[in-house]
Parts: sequence; structure tokens; C-alpha cells
Amino acid sequence: MQKVQYETIKTEIKDHILMITLSRENMNAFNRQMLSELLQVFDEADENDQIRVIIMTGDGKAFCAGADLGRGGETFENKETPVGEYRDGGGILSLRIFDLKKPIIAAINGAAVGVGATMTLPMDIRIASSKAKMGFVFSKRGITPEACSGWFLPRVVGISRATELVFTGKIIPAEEALNLGLVSQVVPPEELLATAEALAKDIADNTSATSVTLSRQLLWKMLGADHPKESHLIESKMIQWAGQQADAREGVHSFLEKRKPDFTMKPSKDLPDFYPWWE
Amino acid sequence: MQKVQYETIKTEIKDHILMITLSRENMNAFNRQMLSELLQVFDEADENDQIRVIIMTGDGKAFCAGADLGRGGETFENKETPVGEYRDGGGILSLRIFDLKKPIIAAINGAAVGVGATMTLPMDIRIASSKAKMGFVFSKRGITPEACSGWFLPRVVGISRATELVFTGKIIPAEEALNLGLVSQVVPPEELLATAEALAKDIADNTSATSVTLSRQLLWKMLGADHPKESHLIESKMIQWAGQQADAREGVHSFLEKRKPDFTMKPSKDLPDFYPWWE
Amino acid sequence: MQKVQYETIKTEIKDHILMITLSRENMNAFNRQMLSELLQVFDEADENDQIRVIIMTGDGKAFCAGADLGRGGETFENKETPVGEYRDGGGILSLRIFDLKKPIIAAINGAAVGVGATMTLPMDIRIASSKAKMGFVFSKRGITPEACSGWFLPRVVGISRATELVFTGKIIPAEEALNLGLVSQVVPPEELLATAEALAKDIADNTSATSVTLSRQLLWKMLGADHPKESHLIESKMIQWAGQQADAREGVHSFLEKRKPDFTMKPSKDLPDFYPWWE
Repeated sequence: MQKVQYETIKTEIKDHILMITLSRENMNAFNRQMLSELLQVFDEADENDQIRVIIMTGDGKAFCAGADLGRGGETFENKETPVGEYRDGGGILSLRIFDLKKPIIAAINGAAVGVGATMTLPMDIRIASSKAKMGFVFSKRGITPEACSGWFLPRVVGISRATELVFTGKIIPAEEALNLGLVSQVVPPEELLATAEALAKDIADNTSATSVTLSRQLLWKMLGADHPKESHLIESKMIQWAGQQADAREGVHSFLEKRKPDFTMKPSKDLPDFYPWWE
Repeated sequence: MQKVQYETIKTEIKDHILMITLSRENMNAFNRQMLSELLQVFDEADENDQIRVIIMTGDGKAFCAGADLGRGGETFENKETPVGEYRDGGGILSLRIFDLKKPIIAAINGAAVGVGATMTLPMDIRIASSKAKMGFVFSKRGITPEACSGWFLPRVVGISRATELVFTGKIIPAEEALNLGLVSQVVPPEELLATAEALAKDIADNTSATSVTLSRQLLWKMLGADHPKESHLIESKMIQWAGQQADAREGVHSFLEKRKPDFTMKPSKDLPDFYPWWE
Repeated sequence: MQKVQYETIKTEIKDHILMITLSRENMNAFNRQMLSELLQVFDEADENDQIRVIIMTGDGKAFCAGADLGRGGETFENKETPVGEYRDGGGILSLRIFDLKKPIIAAINGAAVGVGATMTLPMDIRIASSKAKMGFVFSKRGITPEACSGWFLPRVVGISRATELVFTGKIIPAEEALNLGLVSQVVPPEELLATAEALAKDIADNTSATSVTLSRQLLWKMLGADHPKESHLIESKMIQWAGQQADAREGVHSFLEKRKPDFTMKPSKDLPDFYPWWE
């Protein structure tokens, strides 16, 4: 991280993990500055090979309480932008996460409501404190789902759960979120960050960084493919390319020698020339 | 509801809920008249702002036992329609439900077999009596899945469960349906309608009708989108539009004032000019 | 089965079930010869009406330990094929299974790792011995997912589970595989084949072979369809065609007469002229 001073988030790099902590007034409420700073930190994370995995959490009792309602009833008006040109901020964030090179884990420490909930859907793993609660509350505020949650939510929890959660706008306690598949683990509050870090460290210590980057994009992008043959064609290019690189040799050697691998390839410069293939 | 007299279904509106009860001989068996009456009642429900949520259940012991087999071995022949022009009745029904403005809850009170099971798949929520049972029995009758279940079933329960249920054609008791994610709740028979009504009332009393209509179509239509950017573009239009309407102002105000919202917008006349955007 | 002598697999037909047993050195490791023999046996199975259901298992303690690492660090190099022309062997296998006429059950008796795990994803049902373990270990070997698992894995277990399994490359014990929805049943090792056979026999004895073939392709192919109308159009053709055939008459008659059906139609010659419709 350059010595950028962020105002709405805190960042720290340790053990190849970038910890992003949402940190703003009003329970880390989301605004355009937070969006802008998150976009910047994601760009930096993609370029910085010291960062293998990203964790996002919230400062204090909340993860993110949603859009900042500081403008009251005019909060969602966005009259300054001509109709048809407006672009939802949560959606810009979700699309950036969708293209991210590094795995990202949401460590949901408290209330994650509105965009605070939807921004976690394109993240790879969501774990929650037992004090967390989530809510897709749009219909209770007279507005509509955003952050590409129309696309992500049915894919994460299934269409039947998505419709019920969105129509009722109900608040979902951590245990229910677990039962619904919205989070993969619930832990006591004091164990949340350590749990997220252990998961991140397991990835950072034992896997090839370029393998993980290519895998991340393969899995997410193939969610939208109409036929497995699309996956076959890109996988064929990937595995032939990967198989000729240093990390594959080290991967097989370390396995046969029953030792920990020492992978050396870097997502900043060692990705194949066909990456990103979807553009 | 106009004073239409339906012969295969009963309808009642109470507390902003339209209750549709399938009611025919042979365990509410499905036929072309029932299809026609359901299409009509759905058109009326979409236009009637008194109706916020629809519940469908069955009269007597069954929900719907499937196609009426009154013509015996010729039941599925459909020889009157030239090959290539025939359109499956269950599919016409499912596609109509897919475009519905109002949330629809299946309250499965007994046997839901064949089209009686598949017609519930495009519904938003399925809850079951402990006496309910479902079956995708096509392969046991020498026919093939219908009502767009080829598309809906894998999306509702996952492809691995869908193949097993369809290949075996087995009868699925309520508890197993719950474990498979085919229904979201199982309750004692005498509590079924009250449970469905409580869920419907929660939506009707606490949410914006236009928000729910837009959300319903967003979630279902985005199931078929190849990229989250498709969701982003329509969500951006929706949330900018919604944010300038009365319900968004009321939603934020009531939240900040910690009171129940009083939403006033109507799906019959207050939807944006870009709705329906998918046509 | 003709009197073909396979060298990497064993085959046996009994009670309308084709049992394929992977059988090679190094824990039934996958190589090009095994691919070639599997493609051949699948072609034969599709043509042989004596085969209603296929079961695949592994010889000895393993199901399939993945690619044969006999070439050490050069295992995945594939330098003999020009870049851009290489086609992943696991993917060729998965695409063949995707088009299979007969249901296929994976009876996972032990380690199913790498392509040993991914080749089971396009199969219809996966059941596991309590001694089984699965692993999508690509990132630990410095390579990338294959066998079209970029497409299949998120559809089988959901995107959130897929990313975690692939990024960590962790070994998944049978019980965890069950919780993740990666397998539908876990049974004691000595009951594995009997369980798979009972499931296969239930399909073989009670359903129409042509109904199952058409249903299999409907469900898998519609996973990639953008709109349920695509399903409606093909279902309409199918059910009108099926409804005029002998198996539909027998299906309804046997049901009304409360007796076991005696279906006579054969996938080798009795499929409609529009099959395969997706080519």
C-alpha cells in the first residue's frame, strides 16, 4: 500500500493478508467516498504481490449499515445525473469485486444491511460473528435491490430463498444466515477475525497465487456461461499454459517429495497473455 | 375480482391477499379449463391493487394430482394440434407466473404430483403441510417433464437433486421435500393456511408494492442473465427511478422516525415507463 | 458390450446396470488410455438397450487419484500440442458425460482427487463410502481446474462453496462432502455398491427408458438456457411426441390399473427425430 490516507476505510497488510476495515460515522454507512476508496484499494491489491488474500470487516459494532441516509428522504434521488446515465455505486463495487484477482473474505462482525449486505455477495467466502445480522431491506425503504444483487443473490442462496428475503426485507440473524447458506460459518465475536485470518493464511501459505487468480476468474465467469464447452476451451488453454510454468513443476515435485510447496509465480506479472480472457 | 364465476378454482380476497383454491374432481386434477381460469385470475390479480400477495392451495386432501387422466391412455396424445404447434399447458402457466407482478406462495396441503408439483416451481415460496407429498412422476408414466420444469427444477433444488427426483419419479414426503430445499417450511395441516397468510401479511403490511413488483421481476429475470452487468444496468435505472418516488421518501422517513411506513404507490399505474424491460 | 478388452477399466452388465470400475496402477490414476476407453464404453452404453443405468466406481482403496504423475514435473506440460490446440482430457470426458443418454451414478469408494473428483461432477448422482475423500487440489499443484469443473462445480455445490474448495484445495472427508451437497448419501464401505445398485435398479425397473433419456438431456441442457421459454418449446415437442407413444399409454394404463408398468421403448431406436435437439 502506498502511503495513501484513506478516510472511510482502514487498511493493513500482514502475513500476505490485506485487512480492509470499513470505518465511517453512522455504522460505517456507505457513500461515494467509500466507494472510491474501495475501488482504489482493490486496484492496489491486484497489483501488490504481497497481498494474497483480502479480508473485509467493519469497525465497531457494525459491518456496514447501508447507504448513508444523511440526506433523509432525498438519499436515493440522484437527480444530478440524467436518467439513463446514473450508475448504482454498489453495482460498480460489485463488478469490481467480480473481476478481482485475489480471493476476498467478508468477516461480518455486525449489522450488514442494504448495500452492506449486497456488497458481500460477489465475495468468495462470508463468515459471520454470532452478533451479525443481515438484511436485504430495499422493499421496506421503498427502493429496489442494487449492487448487482439481482444477479448474485439467487446464485448464492438459490432463487426461492432470494425471493423471500427480498420481498419481506426481513433482518436475518447469523444462525439463520448460516442455515440459508448466506454465510458458511458463524463464530463467537472474539474469534471472527482469527477465523478469517486462518482461512486466508491457509490459502496464502499452501497454494500457487497464479493458480488461485486464474481459478477465481474461471469459477465466477463460468457462472454466466451457457454451455460447459465454454469452460472446456478456457480451461484447456489455462492448464496447458500452467503446466509449462514453474509453479506446476514445484507443485508436482513438492507433492511427490511430500513437502510443502514453494511457489514463486506472481499475479502482477506471471499471468498468461490471454488473461483477462473475458474482456 | 369481477363477479366472474370460476368452475375449477375458488378465489377470495382478504387483507390484501388473494387466496386461490384449486377445486376440481379427481383431486383437483389439472385441465385446460383450469389453465384458462388461472391465466384469467392472474391477469386480474396483476391489475388489482387490493391484491398484494397471492396464495395458492388445494381443496380437500390434495393440492393437485396432476393432469386429468380422464381420457386414459390417450390423455397426453394431443393429436388435435399439428406437431410443432402444440404448447404444453403447464408451461403456459409457468411462463405466466414467471411474469407475475405479485409474489405467490404455494401452500401445499396434500398430493402435488406431475403438473401439480411443477406448477409450484416458478412460485416464490413453497410451504407444505406435513401431509403433503410431491412427485415428478413423468418417467413412471412414460412421458417427460413439463411446465418449464426442465428450467426451474435445477434452479430450485440444484441439478443433482433434480436428476435424481426426475429419473426415479419417486414420491417425496414433506419432510424430505424440506431437506431437499423443495419447500422452505413444513407445518401441521391445520396451521398451513395461517402460516402462509402470516407470511403474505408481513409482505403486504410492511413493504412497498412497487418495490416488490420490481424486485420480483429483477430476481427471476436475472436468473437467466450471463453477466452481473445486465443486472447493474437495470438496477441502476430502477433505483434512480425509485429513489425519486413517494415510496422511497416514505421509506426513509418512516425508518428515521422509527414508525411503520405508509406506502401509497400502486403496481397498476405507478411502475416506471421501462417496465416490463425484458419484452 | 462387445468382447473388447479394456486395460484401464473393468466393465460388467447385470440387471440392466453397467458397472464401470476404474482399474489402473497408482490408485486408478487417469491417463489418455483411460480417457479413450471411457469414451468407447460410453458410446457402447448409449447404443446398448440392455444398459439402463451406469455406475462408476474404483478398484481397490481409491476411486481415482487424479492425473497420473508418472512424468513428474512434466506431467502437465503437454508440449507436443501447439498452444491453442490442446484440449483437456478431463474436459473431453465431462462433455461426453454431459451428452450421455443413460443416467450415471458415481459410487465413490475412496480418494477422488483432481480429475478423479471433477469427472464426477457431470454425473447425475454421487454417493460415497464413509472412507471416501474428495479434493479439488489444483491450486496446491500449481495448476488450474479442469474437466469443465469451472462450469459444473458452482452449479453442483453453489458458487460460495466452489470458491472455498478450489482456493484452499483442501481434502474433503465424506461427511463434509455430504454437508456441502457434493454427494447425496454416505454409507459404510461395504454397502456402497449395493446402495448404488438399488438406486439404479429402481430406475431400471420402474421407468420408461426413453423418458429418462429425454429427461436427462432436458435437465442438463436447460442449466445453460437464458429463459424458461427455451424449456417450454422443447418440452412441448417432447410431451406431445411422448404422449403419442406406447410408453405413455402403458404408463397411464398401469397407473390406473395399479400395476407395475411394462415399458418397451428403446433409446437406441425410439427417440424422436428432433433428438438430439441441441446440436
